[in-house]
Amino acid sequence: MVVAQLYIDGKHHGIQMFIVQLRDLETHMPLPGVDIGEIGKKLGMAGVNQGFLGFKRVRIPRTNMLMRNAKVLPGGKFVQSPASRLNYMTMVFTRCLIVNLSYDCLLQAATIATRYSAVRRQSPINSSDPEPQIIDHVTQQQKLFPEIANGIAYRITGQHMWELYELTLKEIANGDYTRMADMHIVACALKVLSTTDGSFGVERLRLACGGHGYLTSTNFSTLYGNVIAAYTYEGENTVLLLQIGRYLVKTWTQLTQGKKMSPLAAYLAEIYDKPEIAAWNDSRSYLVKLLQFTAANKTRLAFENLTNRVNGGQTLEEASNNTGIELTQAAELHGRQFVASAFLEQITVAKKNQRSVALNSVLENILELYLVQTVLRHMNDILRFTPISDANLRSLQNRLELSLKKLRPDAVAICDGFDYHDRVLNSTLGCYDGNVYERLFEAAKKSPLNQKPVPDSFEKYLKPFLKSNL
Amino acid sequence: MVVAQLYIDGKHHGIQMFIVQLRDLETHMPLPGVDIGEIGKKLGMAGVNQGFLGFKRVRIPRTNMLMRNAKVLPGGKFVQSPASRLNYMTMVFTRCLIVNLSYDCLLQAATIATRYSAVRRQSPINSSDPEPQIIDHVTQQQKLFPEIANGIAYRITGQHMWELYELTLKEIANGDYTRMADMHIVACALKVLSTTDGSFGVERLRLACGGHGYLTSTNFSTLYGNVIAAYTYEGENTVLLLQIGRYLVKTWTQLTQGKKMSPLAAYLAEIYDKPEIAAWNDSRSYLVKLLQFTAANKTRLAFENLTNRVNGGQTLEEASNNTGIELTQAAELHGRQFVASAFLEQITVAKKNQRSVALNSVLENILELYLVQTVLRHMNDILRFTPISDANLRSLQNRLELSLKKLRPDAVAICDGFDYHDRVLNSTLGCYDGNVYERLFEAAKKSPLNQKPVPDSFEKYLKPFLKSNL
Repeated sequence: MVVAQLYIDGKHHGIQMFIVQLRDLETHMPLPGVDIGEIGKKLGMAGVNQGFLGFKRVRIPRTNMLMRNAKVLPGGKFVQSPASRLNYMTMVFTRCLIVNLSYDCLLQAATIATRYSAVRRQSPINSSDPEPQIIDHVTQQQKLFPEIANGIAYRITGQHMWELYELTLKEIANGDYTRMADMHIVACALKVLSTTDGSFGVERLRLACGGHGYLTSTNFSTLYGNVIAAYTYEGENTVLLLQIGRYLVKTWTQLTQGKKMSPLAAYLAEIYDKPEIAAWNDSRSYLVKLLQFTAANKTRLAFENLTNRVNGGQTLEEASNNTGIELTQAAELHGRQFVASAFLEQITVAKKNQRSVALNSVLENILELYLVQTVLRHMNDILRFTPISDANLRSLQNRLELSLKKLRPDAVAICDGFDYHDRVLNSTLGCYDGNVYERLFEAAKKSPLNQKPVPDSFEKYLKPFLKSNL
Repeated sequence: MVVAQLYIDGKHHGIQMFIVQLRDLETHMPLPGVDIGEIGKKLGMAGVNQGFLGFKRVRIPRTNMLMRNAKVLPGGKFVQSPASRLNYMTMVFTRCLIVNLSYDCLLQAATIATRYSAVRRQSPINSSDPEPQIIDHVTQQQKLFPEIANGIAYRITGQHMWELYELTLKEIANGDYTRMADMHIVACALKVLSTTDGSFGVERLRLACGGHGYLTSTNFSTLYGNVIAAYTYEGENTVLLLQIGRYLVKTWTQLTQGKKMSPLAAYLAEIYDKPEIAAWNDSRSYLVKLLQFTAANKTRLAFENLTNRVNGGQTLEEASNNTGIELTQAAELHGRQFVASAFLEQITVAKKNQRSVALNSVLENILELYLVQTVLRHMNDILRFTPISDANLRSLQNRLELSLKKLRPDAVAICDGFDYHDRVLNSTLGCYDGNVYERLFEAAKKSPLNQKPVPDSFEKYLKPFLKSNL
């Protein structure tokens, strides 16, 4: 499959996809004009041989173009897709898949690090007591549990996004394309956030395992290599954030013109119409409101600064570039409020009755941790737009510490519940039976340097050197 | 060299160092009772063969202990070090070295990414114009330039720390141990901050190079492997932050008792005595004051919450564990204010006259970027303690954008000025001549998969499969 810009008689018709034969069916030699090879060693994804490809006077039959939407007729006439965004739906699909990949890597890493933290003992809390499981150190809990919460948040929000995706496909089949823009934006946002949080989460979890985490036998580095690749592919994250940012500013412009908002931007209209936030309360929905209020105000700021630049004589595109930092910040917050509100909805309303009371209680604490943690991480922007008292901030810190404490006894069981087989985790630190040290030794013994009690290098280099008269 | 806990007749005498013979001098076989091997593959530092070591009834002669400070007398009597912290000085030295390693890795990565960003062209800013160098995108500048500023900040602050270290050694030689505690804390803080910012900076710079950054031929992954290892070794970063945090709370306790502060904690006393911050002004020293004010207030909060817990019946150690999150946050800010104030001092006062006006002008803009960026990143805490108006926040955003713009024409030249030889950078993307694509192709062609036009796997696996009747 080749994805390429289509030109007919010098006129550009966007990016299209083609099936192209690259090698001879008998000899497998590259066909004339095809320059093909592998790009070399990468920091991850060792099993995928990414290639480079060059064409020189290669003719692709017209019918090799994928023509479900846009078409090229036998005479060479180009027929546009019925909706220009239809091509995006493949990307939307892939980005939804990436959300799955991200939370999967993150939850695997969380399982490894949590199990290890229940086995490893270090640093007495009371100097008269024996060394505790390191999972009893609050700073260790703060490394592990927010990542469990992040992973579950993306898993549940991702499932919700798949439902929206199915709905969008059904509507498209009926000729209704209105939800596509929303779907495109939310898939971009979730792709960006889940790969960013997934990647750095995996790495934080690895670092939470101290020196042992540095061993490749833990499988952390493979997980990291897999998830961080998705930070860049299928729309580099900053490029996607800028797309979302420009969409937000366009949306805000439409608000100033009194236009109606699509469902996923409805919160912007609410805040545009009533630009004050209600007084603080301790509910979880208030934390979501804080994120929404902040996302809206960051959008307003980006809109104002971009507009000022345009009024100052810059083209819209130059102004967009110069407002880039604020556009990406607004975009991130738009994504955050989506995840937070979808997660809240899915836990406390949508599918609540399909779950046991016990499971709901665990999930509600995970939701609590997720929301408090997310709000604390964005406090730099939140405090700019909302007056929050010192007492409220102290209460958030208390809620954070309380949710960690509450999660502690369930942490290992929650990870067991993700149901990753030892063969999947493939980690010396993360196995179900907790036999960490036995596995570390077994893995180390397989090292080429450990196959003989005296490495060959001694006779070859070290001994002659030691015996010489330097 | 073996570092071990020393016990004499069951009594513990701290960690001491011993020279221990591990292998036979003739055969190189491990001596009786010595179990030695290599720990296996790691995510970085491939050239260093870290080992495991076990002793069973191994006798170490008394005189093999390093006895410059603490001693064991022939009769077995233990003589304490003249100052208990003297043992720390070796760790202080190593941590100072790690700061060098960190900024070195970071500035190498910054050189690679900046040079590549001046070569790579993508995404027109005005759609009618050709694709610009990606370094002209403001979001790209925001990825590159703050890392250059961070690297220079740690380099210059690190040099200042070496001066303090030399001074401390001189004082110790004269029997004056008063500066050691300060020195220990500041070395911990700089080790933590430089390895954290260095590691994630290297990775941000790699990500700024898009898909190409994923190739190991760029050398980013080696740099990352080197610097992230230091996040964990020589005092794991969270463990060190907790040490600093406990020192800060102890210091705050001493303030409440009216005690005098050491030089590096003097700012805490100032703020303790006068707990209001002056009205906003646009100077750089005000940004440092903001960080100091916030560090002091985070220390106060940690002190209050820890004290409340102790008053509620917890032991000091339990209370420390439960206040762990706030202790580490206060510790980080203590480090930030040190770097910021030392960097400001070194650029604008200490060695200003040893540099040309032109160089000072460049360095002052880098200082500006560093301070604005650092303050913005800690705004979540700053806004908690200081009323900053929306206009002030807008002015900070303007200063950020202005400093990026000002750095743009100098960026490549600044990196050239770090004077890393192509052989040191060892990167397909980072060479001085900018021939990125030629080098990428050369490196790819060396891949084992590219040695034949048709890989062996075709005849062996693919062809039989294609010809079968599945």
